[in-house]
Formats: sequence, C-alpha cells, structure tokens
Amino acid sequence: MAVLKTNLHGGNLRKLAEAAGLSPADILDFSANINPLGPPEWLRTLISSRVESLAHYPDPDCENLLQAAAVRYGVKAEEIIAGNGSTEIIHLLPRVVTARRAVVAVPAYVDYALAAALAGLPVERIPLAEERDFRPDPEAIDRFLRDGDLFFAGQPNNPTGLLWDADELRRLARRHPAATFVIDEAFADFVPGMDSLTRRRPLNVVVLLSLTKFFAVPGIRLGCAVAAESLIARIKAAMPPWTVNTLAQIIGAAALADKAYAEKTRAYIEQVRETLARELASLGGLYVYPGEANFLLVKVTRRDIDAPELAGKLLRRGIAIRVCDNFDGLDGRFFRVAVRTGEENRRLCQAMGEILKQITTLPRNDGESPS
Amino acid sequence: MAVLKTNLHGGNLRKLAEAAGLSPADILDFSANINPLGPPEWLRTLISSRVESLAHYPDPDCENLLQAAAVRYGVKAEEIIAGNGSTEIIHLLPRVVTARRAVVAVPAYVDYALAAALAGLPVERIPLAEERDFRPDPEAIDRFLRDGDLFFAGQPNNPTGLLWDADELRRLARRHPAATFVIDEAFADFVPGMDSLTRRRPLNVVVLLSLTKFFAVPGIRLGCAVAAESLIARIKAAMPPWTVNTLAQIIGAAALADKAYAEKTRAYIEQVRETLARELASLGGLYVYPGEANFLLVKVTRRDIDAPELAGKLLRRGIAIRVCDNFDGLDGRFFRVAVRTGEENRRLCQAMGEILKQITTLPRNDGESPS
Repeated sequence: MAVLKTNLHGGNLRKLAEAAGLSPADILDFSANINPLGPPEWLRTLISSRVESLAHYPDPDCENLLQAAAVRYGVKAEEIIAGNGSTEIIHLLPRVVTARRAVVAVPAYVDYALAAALAGLPVERIPLAEERDFRPDPEAIDRFLRDGDLFFAGQPNNPTGLLWDADELRRLARRHPAATFVIDEAFADFVPGMDSLTRRRPLNVVVLLSLTKFFAVPGIRLGCAVAAESLIARIKAAMPPWTVNTLAQIIGAAALADKAYAEKTRAYIEQVRETLARELASLGGLYVYPGEANFLLVKVTRRDIDAPELAGKLLRRGIAIRVCDNFDGLDGRFFRVAVRTGEENRRLCQAMGEILKQITTLPRNDGESPS
Repeated sequence: MAVLKTNLHGGNLRKLAEAAGLSPADILDFSANINPLGPPEWLRTLISSRVESLAHYPDPDCENLLQAAAVRYGVKAEEIIAGNGSTEIIHLLPRVVTARRAVVAVPAYVDYALAAALAGLPVERIPLAEERDFRPDPEAIDRFLRDGDLFFAGQPNNPTGLLWDADELRRLARRHPAATFVIDEAFADFVPGMDSLTRRRPLNVVVLLSLTKFFAVPGIRLGCAVAAESLIARIKAAMPPWTVNTLAQIIGAAALADKAYAEKTRAYIEQVRETLARELASLGGLYVYPGEANFLLVKVTRRDIDAPELAGKLLRRGIAIRVCDNFDGLDGRFFRVAVRTGEENRRLCQAMGEILKQITTLPRNDGESPS
C-alpha cells in the first residue's frame, strides 16, 4: 500500500488497481476530481466524426479553440493560449516569467512548487492556518510579497476547496505590480456564481483554466491560460510546436460552447456536496472542511487511524481516496475526496462508516493479513 | 503567400488552406511526411472502444505503452520514455543533458537548434556540402566534436532523406564518450532494412522514435526515446505529469504490435518513391536528391522560378509542398515533398510539369492576378 503515500497526484487508476488487486474498471475513484456526470453526450459522436483528422498535424496555433475560448472568457484571442493540460503552462511559467522566487500559500496543488523548483526558482511556502480551516489569507500574502515574485494560488484552492475573495486578489495584484499572480481556476467551473479573475483582470494576473475536469475528459489533455498579450507571446515562444493534440482542440471548442451542461453540473455538484459533507461529518472522527468545489478536504480527528490506513482499507473494498500527506502544510491526518454522484457518495460513506466502526469495536491489531 | 516563407514546419493545413482559399480537406498535402496509406484499419474501432477511458487521467508512467515499446525495440522498460510527440523530448534534452553546446549538421530538422537555443545552449551548425548532395559527413563531425557537446542527427536526415552509416555513428559515439548523441529515427520505420541505433547502442546515444508519422496519426501526438537508464530517469524527472494523452498511449501500444502494416508500408513507399523521383527529375529544371525515406528533397535548378513561387502556384491548384528556405544550409531553391500514393504523386508531377512549362512558354509576368 506504499503507493498511497508515494503517489504525487490522485487519479492513478492503474497503480490504485494494482494495489487493490482489482482491474481499473472496478475502482470507484474519489482520488481525482472529475465531473461525476461523466462526459457530455456529444463526446462519442464528435470523436467518431473526426477520427480522420488525426492523419494531419494539429493546428499549432489552436485557432478554432482559441477563438471559442476568447468568446467564452471575453478576452482577445492574443490574450489566451492552450497547452497540453494546464500542467504544461504551469511548468512553462516559471521559465518565461523573469521571477526571483516562487511563492505558494500551502496547502496547494503540488505542481506549483515542483514546476518552480524544476525551473531553478527558490520556492517560499506561506502556511495557511489549520486553526482557521486553511482559509486563504490575502493579508499574509500582502505582507510577504515583494518585487519579482511569482505567486501561485488555486481559486478555489486545491485540496481545501476554499475560495479567495476575488476582489481581494485583484487588489493584491494591483498593490504588487512587479509580482506575477498565477490564479489557477482549474475547478472554478464547478463553483456556482464564481467571480472569475478572467474578468477585470489586472495586467500582472495569469488565469489558468481547465476544461477537461469539468467535461470529464482528463485523458485528452487540455488547459488554457489568460494573461497579458506580451506574456502569452513569451509562453508561446517557449512552447514546443503541436503540444495540443487534434482531438483536444476539437473537444475543447465544443465544450466551450456547451453552457447547458455547465449549469446542470454546477447545480448537481452543489446539492450532492452538501449531502456528502453532512454524511461524512456524521460518521464521527472526521472533520470536513467547508469547501465550495467538487471535492472535499477531510481531517481524521481520531487517534486510532490515519488517512493512509483508512485509504488502504477503502482500497481493499475498491474505493480510492486521495491521501494528502504529500501536500506541504498537511500530513497523514488529511485526505481529499471528489464529489461524485449521490449514489456513489453513499457507497463511500457507508464503507468509511463500516471501517471506522470496525476499528472502534475490534482490538487495534485486527488480524488482517498484511498486503 | 507569405505563409509559405514564414512557416517553421510543414503540415499546417489550416494556414495552407487559408492561403489557397480552399478548405483544408481540399488540400493535397505533400508538406508533411505522413504514411500515404493512412491509418491502419483498426484505428477507428480501437478509438471507439476506448472513448470511456478519457474520463480518467492518463497513466503518467505509460506502462502498457512502454512495455510494448521495450519488447519492440529490445530494451528494458527503464531505457525508454514516451513524450507528447518526440518534439517534447527534443525540447527537454538540452535542459537535462549537462551540455556546453549543441551541434547540428545542417540542413536538419529545425527544432534541434530551436530547442537548444530555448534552453540557453549555444548552437554550432556544421554545413553538409551541397556539392556532395548534403551527404552525412561523420569525419567532419569527428573533427568538430568535443567534450560536453550535444550532437543532433536525423537518421534518415530530414529534409534530405539521406542515411548516416549506422556503424560509423556507433564508432563516433564511442570515440566521443563525453558527448551526447541524439539520433532522431522519426522516419526510420519507412526505410527497408534500417539498422536502428536502438540496437548495439553506445551508452551516450539517445534514439528518438516516432510512431505517429508511420501510422498516420500525427494529430494524436506520441514519441519515444531510448537511452541509458540514468538519462531516461533525468528526462522523466523534468517532464510534467500526464504529457502523453490516453488515446496516444492506447494507439501507440497497438501500433507497436502491428508488424504487417509496417512491412506493407515500407515495400509500398520504396516502390512509389523511385517512380516519383524519376518523374520529378524528368520534368527538367529540378534536381532530386537520392533520399531513402518517405520524402524527397528537390532543388530548383532553373533561374526563372524559385521554390516559394513554385509552391505558391501549386497551392492555387490545391497542392502543398514544403519550401525549405528556413532550413539552415538551404535557401529558396529547395523544397521537400512527401512520398504519397502513386496516383497522388502523379497529380503532383503533372501540376508541377504544367507550371514549369507555362513559365518556359509565357513571358515572365504571366498576368496572374495577385492573391
């Protein structure tokens, strides 16, 4: 079960299945934060109608996709770029922004610090206070930031699901014009009424966008960034050609135009997340953070079990959760679960309830054979 | 028609079509070197059966794909890595190999020098002699190389289609153990009886492999590299997660197992290339280089037309060729054509013949309206 501690990211179905002795199809995966309603109905038809297009190189300029994105986000096509997942852009930014250090408010998505370190930038981590539910703390950032900083923040933050006040982020960016703000809105589409930084965006703000989590196609790889024209031009110059495959461009353009699916998903997620949070909290020994995204951060408050052990026991029942011990600022008490369908969430809560009850009623060494 | 001079790469169908005033589907594209037999029959069925897999993140370790590649190339799985096209690996290598300069024998694929320059490496270009048909020149390389060099060579070389003697490359690599040799075998599958450097590979040789040109799916993005375990580990550490999308992994694993398609393609290409080379040469005013790949480099030897003009006239007839004026060591006299089907090649030669004849018989300003 060492896999659960050493995996850098969630969603590694193959390794999770191997560890569980199951096939990937038999894993109920709460470790990756994907739209539980699955891909929209048009996906299969669209792919099938465009298989022939794979015989050509992708459009290196992603023109159709970027036109659709420019309309959707209300920006110029020159202010937006597409990448092989927003991951590609996260890894390019520290190389093209002339920064002196990277600053991350932790806990946060692990790739911010990794990308900065790979680019040779020193990384400063500002811990968010556990006693304040790891709430975003613009004042602490304001005090800490200086010229030449590259500041990363998730909006909502991953793994907490908590939101920064968008206007405070805008003010912060204006107060530090010689710093660059990377606001990762990878999960923003899941949040009803989200005030996206793509709107009224200060010039030193880069907004990262992901469509593939929301449209449940993370396997195809697609992400975008909105930023000042000059920065987009620098990212583009540093990007190898053809990094966005043809199907990702086609699917992305279609997804950007599908507003009905977006509204349906947001309403659904909000409703089932509330139920999931309540049911998890009612199990006893778990503290559920008040996240507003399509995932929840949970702390194990009991002393007789930790998150890796809980995850191991769940995995033997075919259920995967994301242990958060490799997030800076968190430890083995924390795990994250995606919000899935109401029925799937109930299966998670039932299994977790049984495991927690078993530990309470059985002696500590419960005679399970080591796996 | 400025697009023809400023495009860095071939195969930009959208721009070619825009310049021609046609739809991309109406362009007969000789500018990208893709298998003219198209994708194998199993492609559509395979994609259709795996659409659901897009709802999960790709396997970040590409395990199934790399297992298949290890078997196919007779190396350990730890000696091979997959990327978002071999382009991704070309761009990572100058950043992870501790080199002092990059060395390229030109003309060569333009991304070698571009990737090295982006990584901050000085680039030394060794010109291959036009009077010797730009033949690979291991002796010149031997004299030039020194410790800490990162040497790039296409095998066969693009755009000439000429082959290095594989054993000379092996000897060269052994004579310069403190240099790193990147041997790009992107088009090697098209060459019958090819002596791949993946076999009897000196430890300081990296072999780049592409499946998507051969299996006619460049839109899906997939490339591999074979190298020493320690270098593969360094590339992997510098690579963002999930750069190889799920469909690329699935298609790649299937392609690696399809030997029948490979043999059929090689036999076909060899036959139609000979015919194409003969017919081009017979038009008069064109010199065809003796390439052994699925493309041919051609020099316009007449004074009254150059390659950009010829390409512009062809494009108005819906035919795209690759003007080679942006290859170091070449100029506006040179163009490259892919070897396509016998019928398509005849269409190219007929159109080219008509254009060349028209120029001979008409006054220089032939009254065409500017486009």
